[in-house]
Amino acid sequence: MVRTVIKSIVESKVGNGDLLVKGWVRNRRGSKNVQFIALNDGSCLGNLQVVVDIEKFDESILKKISVGAALAIEGKLEESSGNQSFELIAEKIDILGEANPETYPIQPKKHSMEFLRENAHLRMRTNTFSAVFRVRHYLSHAIHQFFHQKGYYHLHTPIITASDCEGAGEMFRVSTFEPNQFPKDESGHPDYSQDFFGKATNLTVSGQLEGETGAMALGGIYTFGPTFRAENSNTTRHLAEFWMVEPEVAFNTLKENRELAEEFLKYCIQFALDNCPEDLQFLQTLEEEREKLLPENQRNELPLLEKLKFVTQNDFVHLTYTVAIDVLLKSNHYKKGKFEYDVKWGIDLQSEHERYLVEKEFKKPVILTDYPKDIKAFYMKQNEDGKTVAAMDILFPGIGEIIGGSERESNLEKLEKRMIEMDINLDELWWYLDTRRFGTAPHAGFGLGFERLVLFVTGMTNIRDVIPFPRTPKNAEF
Amino acid sequence: MVRTVIKSIVESKVGNGDLLVKGWVRNRRGSKNVQFIALNDGSCLGNLQVVVDIEKFDESILKKISVGAALAIEGKLEESSGNQSFELIAEKIDILGEANPETYPIQPKKHSMEFLRENAHLRMRTNTFSAVFRVRHYLSHAIHQFFHQKGYYHLHTPIITASDCEGAGEMFRVSTFEPNQFPKDESGHPDYSQDFFGKATNLTVSGQLEGETGAMALGGIYTFGPTFRAENSNTTRHLAEFWMVEPEVAFNTLKENRELAEEFLKYCIQFALDNCPEDLQFLQTLEEEREKLLPENQRNELPLLEKLKFVTQNDFVHLTYTVAIDVLLKSNHYKKGKFEYDVKWGIDLQSEHERYLVEKEFKKPVILTDYPKDIKAFYMKQNEDGKTVAAMDILFPGIGEIIGGSERESNLEKLEKRMIEMDINLDELWWYLDTRRFGTAPHAGFGLGFERLVLFVTGMTNIRDVIPFPRTPKNAEF
Repeated sequence: MVRTVIKSIVESKVGNGDLLVKGWVRNRRGSKNVQFIALNDGSCLGNLQVVVDIEKFDESILKKISVGAALAIEGKLEESSGNQSFELIAEKIDILGEANPETYPIQPKKHSMEFLRENAHLRMRTNTFSAVFRVRHYLSHAIHQFFHQKGYYHLHTPIITASDCEGAGEMFRVSTFEPNQFPKDESGHPDYSQDFFGKATNLTVSGQLEGETGAMALGGIYTFGPTFRAENSNTTRHLAEFWMVEPEVAFNTLKENRELAEEFLKYCIQFALDNCPEDLQFLQTLEEEREKLLPENQRNELPLLEKLKFVTQNDFVHLTYTVAIDVLLKSNHYKKGKFEYDVKWGIDLQSEHERYLVEKEFKKPVILTDYPKDIKAFYMKQNEDGKTVAAMDILFPGIGEIIGGSERESNLEKLEKRMIEMDINLDELWWYLDTRRFGTAPHAGFGLGFERLVLFVTGMTNIRDVIPFPRTPKNAEF
Repeated sequence: MVRTVIKSIVESKVGNGDLLVKGWVRNRRGSKNVQFIALNDGSCLGNLQVVVDIEKFDESILKKISVGAALAIEGKLEESSGNQSFELIAEKIDILGEANPETYPIQPKKHSMEFLRENAHLRMRTNTFSAVFRVRHYLSHAIHQFFHQKGYYHLHTPIITASDCEGAGEMFRVSTFEPNQFPKDESGHPDYSQDFFGKATNLTVSGQLEGETGAMALGGIYTFGPTFRAENSNTTRHLAEFWMVEPEVAFNTLKENRELAEEFLKYCIQFALDNCPEDLQFLQTLEEEREKLLPENQRNELPLLEKLKFVTQNDFVHLTYTVAIDVLLKSNHYKKGKFEYDVKWGIDLQSEHERYLVEKEFKKPVILTDYPKDIKAFYMKQNEDGKTVAAMDILFPGIGEIIGGSERESNLEKLEKRMIEMDINLDELWWYLDTRRFGTAPHAGFGLGFERLVLFVTGMTNIRDVIPFPRTPKNAEF
């Protein structure tokens, strides 16, 4: 008999009758005569209730049916009288793999998040994490669908690179040198010309610069790949390895870039709402339970599903950085001295400023544009005022910056001048400058830290809980 | 006016009338009175023919319309009398970016592939490479679609890892140590406990082992991410950085794994046939031109499109390794001593053997299963004969192995015994063994080297030409 996936039963795509299911025991309860097994096969949150008539089965089988055990069960699917829509009346049970209750770590009780992180290889077997990683899948799929439908091509930009996009940022070195015995040059430094790639190489911090060369050939492209930061930040917001989405579109200006980003975020969130109602409902309940323990003023104003619908159904607020500074300066919050960091034109907005704008002032996602050039990257288009660049950040409640982007400087002379001012090596980026040297055109793009989107949509509070195997300082287990 | 994408014009989705296009000049020809510009915006292979009445435009504009220049053109779209279905009668031309004919490397003439590799940032602007990277996109999209429709979840397995899946393989080290001044332990070795992750870390060679932990929770998963080999192989088949697709499905045996792989390959190739007819036709012509220079016996028997259809329309041949050895031993090829390497049970099949089976004996893709255990990885399910494992390789004409996979050993004792025999560290893989310790079940998966698929579908002959920025020994430019 062919295995029936539990999702298709839960979604009532299968009628009454004989079938075979396989999955893992999530729970077992019942009386001396009848036992009820909650069986889950990972396809969805819902379990299939399996009814076991004790008399029909050997004690040697029954005693192995413990939480975590893998079973294959043949039986008859029947409409249930209880709150389950269907239940399976077991006729044959095969124990595929046992799970000793004395040693199996994932028991049906409350585990600390830290304990589950230490068991990241097993945490996907819990309701919480299976829901998170299913939602993560749907968001990832939405991203591919969105750009594909736009006619943008997925470009696989390199992971190992000899150039550093931002001109800064702490990077991981990639090498085949043995640390104790590498060739040295005449001045005693490591001779990277003898390393695998013939030069010093790092893990990429962004695929944008290579992505731009793709956009100037294929029109619209997007990247979706891992990026790396060797920052020693042990926070709930930072990972050393994370996935980044970076579209880049020829002929787009800042305005079209902004519109694209808003449409994109709404599409992804709507895709999750449409495809993961059960998982999101579960995560909402989880968030509510967690927030009950918090003081009232730290709780979310909207339940998770409401918050997501609010984003998809409302226009984002758009204002310039300069106006935003004015708004902050005129706020009672500022006048009462409630900001920890000072507010004045030219500052890099702090998280408290961004959250004030999003959560208190506008109560909507906010797109800030036209930032001071001195706090932004070299490649951003210089505005005519000589002070600002055509940058944009999108700020989300609870998350802060979820997207950063810009129109790019397409004028070779202006770009080179800015690179020199900012001490960026022009020779190393000869190929990047070629895009401005030959057939240059306006173009724009942005970067989305994928895990931040997953964090927002799932309502989880620690970024380590939305990527299967987080990499953070002192942690590369699994 | 909103820009119209050239693909929608070429595909006749736009009627006659006024419109705005933007793109790059691919060619310019004509007379003293009328000039014809072939404009391409990367959205498709086809150019839009723009008709320029010389009298209407300033010489200062006209002289900047050279190959590679970026233009914005407003005009009237009209049905053409020539072999173009539509042409645009230019009314307004803006030069967005010039391309000096004296210095722009990509001129409309034959460039060597090596020259184009050295200009990988510009080669996407050629017909050949724009076609290759559009096809690559469609194949990538097909992969996501296929697994999504199957209900398998995309799992982002880690790139930086402290474990080595295959128990072998040359790896790139990832570190934040300064090569000249790293902390040493008491015996003078680098003290990795002080490195970023608190231990020695590498770039992953496969996401399979982590993927298995996902399958044993979510049922079916797939990975699609970069993998790395620090092998000093300067061939047309090897990259140091390449993209791998690895599905892993709980409860699947070797048989279902084999069926999944065949269905998967057919789906991807059919997706390309359905969505990229123009690009594939172009690549077929390119291949034909290239093959004219080869001796007849080295040419492909089928033109590219025929070859692809042949794969989608025929069942793959399935035989065991043991039978395959028999077939080879009984072949005239063997009897006449035409194989360079000897054939006997136990050998790792050489490329010449695989090609003989696929190209001469069966003339179809071949799935070989049940290989000798001593030439396969530790995690493969041990068959009852004690000599073979439930492995499978799929062999394609011209490519050789395109997929390798297996049912996994789900029995803890057998797996541990094999790991000890093969000198794999059990302690490091404690988490992997947990999948067999708790709720183990049959499961199976395979790996597809994505670039090999792109190579096969595009008919390109060097793997460096199907990834945007190839990483190979002594080469990490861009």
